[in-house]
Amino acid sequence: MRPRRVGITLGDPGGIGPEIVVKALAGPASFPAAQFILFGHAGLVEREERSGGLTLDRARISVRDIDSAVAPSRRGAADPGNGLASFRFFEAAVRAAREGEVDALATAPISKHAWALAGLSWRGHTEFLESLYPDAIMTFWSKKMTVALFTHHISMAEAVRKVTRDNLVRFFLALSGSFERARPGTYQFVVAGLNPHAGENGLIGREEEDEVVPAVAEVRARGLNIRGPYPPDVVFREALGHPGKIVVALYHDQGLIPFKLSSFETGVNITLGMPFVRTSPDHGTAFDIAGRNAADPTSMAEAIRLAVELSPGPL
Amino acid sequence: MRPRRVGITLGDPGGIGPEIVVKALAGPASFPAAQFILFGHAGLVEREERSGGLTLDRARISVRDIDSAVAPSRRGAADPGNGLASFRFFEAAVRAAREGEVDALATAPISKHAWALAGLSWRGHTEFLESLYPDAIMTFWSKKMTVALFTHHISMAEAVRKVTRDNLVRFFLALSGSFERARPGTYQFVVAGLNPHAGENGLIGREEEDEVVPAVAEVRARGLNIRGPYPPDVVFREALGHPGKIVVALYHDQGLIPFKLSSFETGVNITLGMPFVRTSPDHGTAFDIAGRNAADPTSMAEAIRLAVELSPGPL
Repeated sequence: MRPRRVGITLGDPGGIGPEIVVKALAGPASFPAAQFILFGHAGLVEREERSGGLTLDRARISVRDIDSAVAPSRRGAADPGNGLASFRFFEAAVRAAREGEVDALATAPISKHAWALAGLSWRGHTEFLESLYPDAIMTFWSKKMTVALFTHHISMAEAVRKVTRDNLVRFFLALSGSFERARPGTYQFVVAGLNPHAGENGLIGREEEDEVVPAVAEVRARGLNIRGPYPPDVVFREALGHPGKIVVALYHDQGLIPFKLSSFETGVNITLGMPFVRTSPDHGTAFDIAGRNAADPTSMAEAIRLAVELSPGPL
Repeated sequence: MRPRRVGITLGDPGGIGPEIVVKALAGPASFPAAQFILFGHAGLVEREERSGGLTLDRARISVRDIDSAVAPSRRGAADPGNGLASFRFFEAAVRAAREGEVDALATAPISKHAWALAGLSWRGHTEFLESLYPDAIMTFWSKKMTVALFTHHISMAEAVRKVTRDNLVRFFLALSGSFERARPGTYQFVVAGLNPHAGENGLIGREEEDEVVPAVAEVRARGLNIRGPYPPDVVFREALGHPGKIVVALYHDQGLIPFKLSSFETGVNITLGMPFVRTSPDHGTAFDIAGRNAADPTSMAEAIRLAVELSPGPL
C-alpha cells in the first residue's frame, strides 16, 4: 500500500509561508507517515533551510518547481509577482490533487492583496476552491474548538432560506463522510440552532422544529453521532476546550465569531466536501516579520498533520 | 438635590440572591452616592447579615417588606413559593420604578424554573420588562466587552427584516440617549454588520450598503460617536478587552455568542430603553451553593454600581 501523499504550497514568497513550511517539516513535530511534495521553488526551500540551519529529509519531502512568469523577489510587502507566483503554486497543487497525484493539500498563507495586485479574480484559496467545488465545506479547528459551517459566503437572508431538512441531511452526511474517512466512528457532532434559544420549541422561529430536528433525527437513524439543535449562545461556550466535538454552525458568523474570539491566528482552516482535503493555518503572510527567522510554525505544522490525518486510507 | 435612589430585589429566597445583595452592599466595593431600597423581606436580609457577620448601613439602605402569599422556606432548589415571592419582590420594585420612587433597579437572580412552578407566564425578568416596554434594549457588560442587542427574542428571518435605516436610527438614538444620561460624551459605539464580511460592499447581501451605512451616517451627523458596520467575526475580537467600546449586535446570538464565550457568569445584564435602567448579574441562583456563605458578590456589586451610574441626574 502506498503511503499517503500530501501536497504543500509555499504560499506568498514574500511572506512567512516558505519559512513555516520548512520549519514545520524539519522541526520536532511528528507527522503520521506520509510523502510530502512542496509546490513552489527549490530556491525558496533552500533559502529557508540555510537561514534556519535546517535540512529537509529529501527521502520523504520533494520539491516541485513551478514555472512562474515573474520571479519572486520582494519580501515583506504585497507584490504582484509574488501574488502570481503563490497563485501558480496553489493552482498546480490543486491540479495534482484533482488528478489524484496527492491525497490532500496543506497551503501556506497567500496575500489577498497581492492576488488582487496580480489581477487575479479569486479573493483567496477558499474562493478558488469554491469555484471548483460549490459544495465545499469550511471547517475550522483549533485546540479550543472545531467548527463546521453549513453555509458561508451568502447573505443572512439567503442563509435562513437554506435551512431546510433536505439541505441539512445532505450536509450532515457529507460532513460526517469527510471526517469518517480518517478515523471512523470517533467523531461527535453538535448542531447549533438558527434562532435565539434554538427557537424555544417553535416560539421564536419554526426552523428548528420543522427542519433541524427532523434532519438530525434522520441522520441519527443512519448512524451519525450527532445531537442538537442547541441554543447558539450556549453550544459554543460548552464546546470550548473540546475540539473533538465538532460544532455545526448554520451560518458564517455563528461559527466564525466564536472561533476567531477563542482561537485567533492559532487555528487551522480545513476545506472538506471535495475529492481531497485542504488545510491551511488560520493566519496571514505576516509580512512584518518575513525574512527574520521569527515565524512560529505551530499552526502550519497542525495544518500538515490534519491534512495527513484527514486523507483517505489507512495510516 | 436628592440623591439617586436604586431599588434592589433580593431574587429567589432559596438561591444566592439575598446573600450576594447583602455582601455587595456591606463589602469593600464602593458605590457612587445613592440611597438603596431592598425589595424583599427584612427577615431575609437579617438572616444574611447574621450568617455573613455583616451589617448594612441602614442610613442609606432600607428594606421594603413585600407581602407574599407564601412564606419563603426551601433553600437550594426551585420552589413555587420562592418563585412567587421573588416575582412579587420584582413586581413591587418595577412598580416603584414606574412611579418614579426609585431611579433604577438592580435585580438579584430568580429561578425561571421556580417562576414556572409558581404558574407565572413570564419566563424571567427580561420577558416581564419586555411585556411592559416593547422597545427595551438588552445590553451586556463585563470587564471583557460591552454588547447591545438591536433585536433579541425574534426569529432570524424577522431579525433580518428589521434591519432598516429607520429602525436602526431610532435604536441608535435610544441606545445613545440611555448611556449619555450617565456620562455625556464618553461613549463610543461600533456596529457589527448583518452579513458575512459586513456584506463585502454589497456582494454578500445589500443590508449594509442600503440600510446600515446610511443609518450610521445619519446619527453621526447628529453627533453620535459611532462607527461601522464592521465584519462581525472581526469586531467582537477587536472589542475584547475594551468594555468602554459598546458593540451593537444586530441580532441576539451575534452579541450573545461572543459575550457568553468571553464573559460567562461574570457580566451584568443591563436593560435600557425604558424610563428607568435595570441591571442584573449574568448568573443564576446557584442553588448548589445557596446558604453556604460561599457566593461571590462581584457581579451583583457591578450590577448595583452600573444601576447607580446609568441613572439620570448628576452623581
